[in-house]
Amino acid sequence: MQYMPVTESMFLVAETRDQPMHVGGLQLFIPREGQTSDELAEEMAATFTSATDIAPMFRKRPATPAQLAGYTAWSFDDTVDFDYHLRRIILPRPGAIRDLLRYVSLNHGALLDRRRPMWEVHIIEGLADGRVALYTKVHHSVVDGVTALRLLQRTLSTDPADRAGTAFWDSRLKRRRSAPTEPKGLLSSLTSAAGQVLDVADQVVGMAPAAAKIAVAGVTDSDYFAPMQQAPQTILNVPIGSARRFAAQDWPVERLRAVGKAQGMTLNDVVVAMCSGALRRYLADNDALPDESLVALMPVSLHADGDSDGNAVTAISVRMATDVESTADRVTAIKASTAAAKKAVRGLRPLQALALGAATIWPLAFNTVPGFVQYTPTGFNLIISNVPGPDDELYWNGARLDGCYPVSIPMEGLAMNITVTTVGGKANFGIIGARAELPRLQRILDHLETTLAEMETIEPQA
Amino acid sequence: MQYMPVTESMFLVAETRDQPMHVGGLQLFIPREGQTSDELAEEMAATFTSATDIAPMFRKRPATPAQLAGYTAWSFDDTVDFDYHLRRIILPRPGAIRDLLRYVSLNHGALLDRRRPMWEVHIIEGLADGRVALYTKVHHSVVDGVTALRLLQRTLSTDPADRAGTAFWDSRLKRRRSAPTEPKGLLSSLTSAAGQVLDVADQVVGMAPAAAKIAVAGVTDSDYFAPMQQAPQTILNVPIGSARRFAAQDWPVERLRAVGKAQGMTLNDVVVAMCSGALRRYLADNDALPDESLVALMPVSLHADGDSDGNAVTAISVRMATDVESTADRVTAIKASTAAAKKAVRGLRPLQALALGAATIWPLAFNTVPGFVQYTPTGFNLIISNVPGPDDELYWNGARLDGCYPVSIPMEGLAMNITVTTVGGKANFGIIGARAELPRLQRILDHLETTLAEMETIEPQA
Repeated sequence: MQYMPVTESMFLVAETRDQPMHVGGLQLFIPREGQTSDELAEEMAATFTSATDIAPMFRKRPATPAQLAGYTAWSFDDTVDFDYHLRRIILPRPGAIRDLLRYVSLNHGALLDRRRPMWEVHIIEGLADGRVALYTKVHHSVVDGVTALRLLQRTLSTDPADRAGTAFWDSRLKRRRSAPTEPKGLLSSLTSAAGQVLDVADQVVGMAPAAAKIAVAGVTDSDYFAPMQQAPQTILNVPIGSARRFAAQDWPVERLRAVGKAQGMTLNDVVVAMCSGALRRYLADNDALPDESLVALMPVSLHADGDSDGNAVTAISVRMATDVESTADRVTAIKASTAAAKKAVRGLRPLQALALGAATIWPLAFNTVPGFVQYTPTGFNLIISNVPGPDDELYWNGARLDGCYPVSIPMEGLAMNITVTTVGGKANFGIIGARAELPRLQRILDHLETTLAEMETIEPQA
Repeated sequence: MQYMPVTESMFLVAETRDQPMHVGGLQLFIPREGQTSDELAEEMAATFTSATDIAPMFRKRPATPAQLAGYTAWSFDDTVDFDYHLRRIILPRPGAIRDLLRYVSLNHGALLDRRRPMWEVHIIEGLADGRVALYTKVHHSVVDGVTALRLLQRTLSTDPADRAGTAFWDSRLKRRRSAPTEPKGLLSSLTSAAGQVLDVADQVVGMAPAAAKIAVAGVTDSDYFAPMQQAPQTILNVPIGSARRFAAQDWPVERLRAVGKAQGMTLNDVVVAMCSGALRRYLADNDALPDESLVALMPVSLHADGDSDGNAVTAISVRMATDVESTADRVTAIKASTAAAKKAVRGLRPLQALALGAATIWPLAFNTVPGFVQYTPTGFNLIISNVPGPDDELYWNGARLDGCYPVSIPMEGLAMNITVTTVGGKANFGIIGARAELPRLQRILDHLETTLAEMETIEPQA
């Protein structure tokens, strides 16, 4: 038995059948020269099932798996039932990417069993392009999204000749040498941010109004006015069912960097601008574009400011300028908005910044109370996370990683989540939404491309 | 909106993440002469997706999908998102039956989304033997297990030349002529029985002790002593997780009939005796065979007595004689036990019989209260249902139905369920269990065969 901190148990408490609290990753691999996709899948399955020395975090489960309370400890299983946790499947013909995304959509809506270690890995064959996919699902009480991506990357090597590929649960991983270097200035997922903030704010789960009071006391209006601003009510901000829709695509980071250079934007600004243009189009498609701009919450690390004070993470809220029709004007507005939000965070001492995060996210704590979503305005419409990974190409036993998409968590009142990760020169967008509430979600992929192409044509503003 | 009777809403109320309340069916089809399994699967998918005139029962969903209460009405969707409800998959190599059963096991543990019509159909390819499987999952609030099997059978024809095969949700099905004849003397699943009983007993969900009082008043000890008897505590009677393990196999009905004739047993008695011998061996394998006999609850129809009073269904409890080592002596004991139980039911008026059912099953109502299972003895150890279907061979567009296995519901304190259906000359056993709690469940299949073979060698007792 091991004590379970509230930063972990909160994800068990917040979980409902409509709001599963697991994070996921979808990785695509190109078989190495001379290897078929069958052979790569068999090699993965054989390697994974032989990794029976399992790290404790992947053997732990809640000691008391009851429904509503009592998550005070982890217990540890000695072994793991691989027949259950490691799954294999072949996609139906034609094996298009949409068949893969559909498989992930359908599986991401299912709760993990609390009576066993809370993770699954699916080895997926049948893609017409010959790639092999890995879909990984881990409960958020076990890891946050950023750690999950890092764990997955740690099984990989920058050396295509390396044949020491293993499973992410392999306890020998800690001792490996060739792990890719950790990125600097890591932006963390909101839920990680929430965990850390709440830990600092005296473990305030269940007493969120008090947390808000603390936060407001630490942040004056002159520093920052955004957290308590009101975001418009949209189709993104509704109660949700458990069914999911997942869309994913990647773009060369070079394209985003070129736009950033021309327009005087950071890579993060370019991501926001792409999302803004895409959401504007998507909402208009659905006759649901509000007159006021959407507000995005973006988790940010405080490490970039040279302060290495633990896992200090907070979140900023950014007006996305979705009410601006001209792409050039929208880009200008977003630059101003993100600069103001970041300046506000920079001007704060770490504890103030953490408190700011708490003030920004506390309404989430109430969102699983039935009826709460409909009547309570929140300060933002969706969460957008940008998680930089290593620039190098990565390999698993010589099979090149060709796409690494985060699969995050929609929540009551936050029906869509966009998470972006940059790995090996690609910006991988993973968009997860509540299925019934967000029809034709996959169109956002086209709208992201359209917006990026538009930004490539506007006059440089740098 | 449509009023939801408590006999339906009780399955929504009783459902937890560890105890999903959906019933399932696994059907196997042999492609017709000259047809490949790919072609049969494509034909099914094309036919099903074109069946867009959907019967109301497969368009309805709870009007208020909140967690704990308020299920007082159904609302009806106009359309169904086939991309979600109709799923296709290819099994991984080698495509053995165990790969199929594993797929069903993994999927039967996942909750259905309450914000949409509560059913799924999976078209499964990749079996090495060339058969195509259909796994169907419907919430118990929508249909009971018997009705589900009948619906599936109604899509089939006794005529191999018939090409009017369709999906079970097709609203034109009611108007079809060539539906197989309904079996007589239908035994119903317990959960159906519970629903009906509780309806009669003044809708007693939430006040089960009162129901028991009514029931006891209606049944004197001289009629029947079994309901309040205590069953031994076993590994079948523990709290459960959501993960499942499914095992299925069929035997020629002729073999069971021959044993029945030689031993003076009904087909139902033979099923009980097979289960008894198999459970005795399975529990001994796990060092968990109790000194006292297991008690099985068996749903029975009252229609066989010529009383056509609605859906009158009740349940009898049968001592399985698992404490008897000799197969011959066990057969003798089971004959006496089932005869006594059935005699008691026959001697009752319908309302008394219904009340008896309520007395027998009422402890189930409490089993989702955390901690209840560990401390409260129940009157039985598992539910065994025997559901006779049509004797004829059945076809879907000329593809012969070659196995039709029920996938039922384990519950808190009832970690295993055995349901048997006889269709087209085969007795199909479907055994579903809680995965972590019942290791190596599939060994019961071998033990069923061993027990049947033993019964074939003992001296006739007829």
